[in-house]
Amino acid sequence: MANSPTGESVLERVDRILAAFTAEDSRLTGGQIAALTGLPTATAHRLARDMARRGWLERVEGGHYVVGTRLWELASRSSRELDLARTARPFMGDIHAALRQHVQLGIVDGREVLLVERLSQPGAVPVRASVAGRLPLHLSATGLVLLAHGPREHQQAYLEAPLSSVTGLSPTDPAVLAADLERIRVQGHAVQTGYLEPDTTGIAVPVRGRGDQVVAGLGVVTRAGDPAARAGAIVQALHTAAHGIRRTLRETGR
Amino acid sequence: MANSPTGESVLERVDRILAAFTAEDSRLTGGQIAALTGLPTATAHRLARDMARRGWLERVEGGHYVVGTRLWELASRSSRELDLARTARPFMGDIHAALRQHVQLGIVDGREVLLVERLSQPGAVPVRASVAGRLPLHLSATGLVLLAHGPREHQQAYLEAPLSSVTGLSPTDPAVLAADLERIRVQGHAVQTGYLEPDTTGIAVPVRGRGDQVVAGLGVVTRAGDPAARAGAIVQALHTAAHGIRRTLRETGR
Repeated sequence: MANSPTGESVLERVDRILAAFTAEDSRLTGGQIAALTGLPTATAHRLARDMARRGWLERVEGGHYVVGTRLWELASRSSRELDLARTARPFMGDIHAALRQHVQLGIVDGREVLLVERLSQPGAVPVRASVAGRLPLHLSATGLVLLAHGPREHQQAYLEAPLSSVTGLSPTDPAVLAADLERIRVQGHAVQTGYLEPDTTGIAVPVRGRGDQVVAGLGVVTRAGDPAARAGAIVQALHTAAHGIRRTLRETGR
Repeated sequence: MANSPTGESVLERVDRILAAFTAEDSRLTGGQIAALTGLPTATAHRLARDMARRGWLERVEGGHYVVGTRLWELASRSSRELDLARTARPFMGDIHAALRQHVQLGIVDGREVLLVERLSQPGAVPVRASVAGRLPLHLSATGLVLLAHGPREHQQAYLEAPLSSVTGLSPTDPAVLAADLERIRVQGHAVQTGYLEPDTTGIAVPVRGRGDQVVAGLGVVTRAGDPAARAGAIVQALHTAAHGIRRTLRETGR
């Protein structure tokens, strides 16, 4: 097991090792990497050392590894996610300044929404995911709006698999979720209360790109019962920002 | 050459392929990847396909590849660079709002400054590097302040290698640069005019972390002759922001 016979499996192992590092577990020993990835200990240690030699991981005090600067650089300098986040950020800042709530931008990746940017509000309601974090599409407003405006085939496939629930407040019946998605598509925004946290409301709108296709979801996370949410003020602010992002994407040719 | 015999060389090749993608060349065909990396064409095509299977690259129209969402996600979710950038961003925004100039944050990586965040000002002076871009330490104010406040051994090694020049206005004599670094260390900020662009001034201060060590350089890029630069107003704004970043790093335990 010391060396992998094919390039394919090295890539796969390196991917598994990198996936073991998260916002919560950002420092891991070789032994922890082995435990989290299921790789043989000697293999995990050897690969981690190899990755550290190239700056993909870095060795820090206590024999821990962290994700390396080199990997961040390689991933960031031509990243479409970073481009989108940077384009959206000023408009997200406008919403944030006006509403003093968490603002987040997400894209679809498989059955999940991947958060590419977030502006957080100290003291606002607690939220589950951070930047580069993931949530099931049907449990967050940002995900729902992306699912509702995405390809029909993707929706159908999504509805065919079991629908998980965290709080018991989100739909687990595919027919109910299908009707919700239809309503979201017609009204142009999604609202969910209590799907992830009992006292939290998420509100999101689609962000369109150069063409008419939806490239991201833009959402606010607020306290359930927030008067601004009831009055439609948040939806209006989100639509305004989404329009600004689209205009900038068009102007810059992205 | 179809398969690499050891894990080491697969990692190295994957690193070379990823390094071929830049902000300017963000879409590459398999053939272009081969040309830019020097890998045999068949190897480049095969590795690109393997990387695409794992989402490290993505296939887009015209047979081009782009850096994939998966790689961005792996690199971002526990990234210290992203943490630092996110901590610094509000303070960089304050400078940006006050001065309407480019503001950038960089860290040392070898003989270069790696930019981890930038807030750009439309219509301000053109600048060379973008986020995840690099500049030689002695050619940018952010790099100079990092070099001046870094370990003595690093400075000495830096001064022993040839000092490149872009405009002919930067020091190429190591004794001159050594004196400049001493002055920067004493006065606590760096100013350079014309080292990268003839009509551009860079001004930067060190950002300290939890301890007293310098963890980043914070700089503004402005027009040469900017009255705010002459009056010391930019240096003062930068010191204020650097202090805020340090306080936040301490409060959040990073």
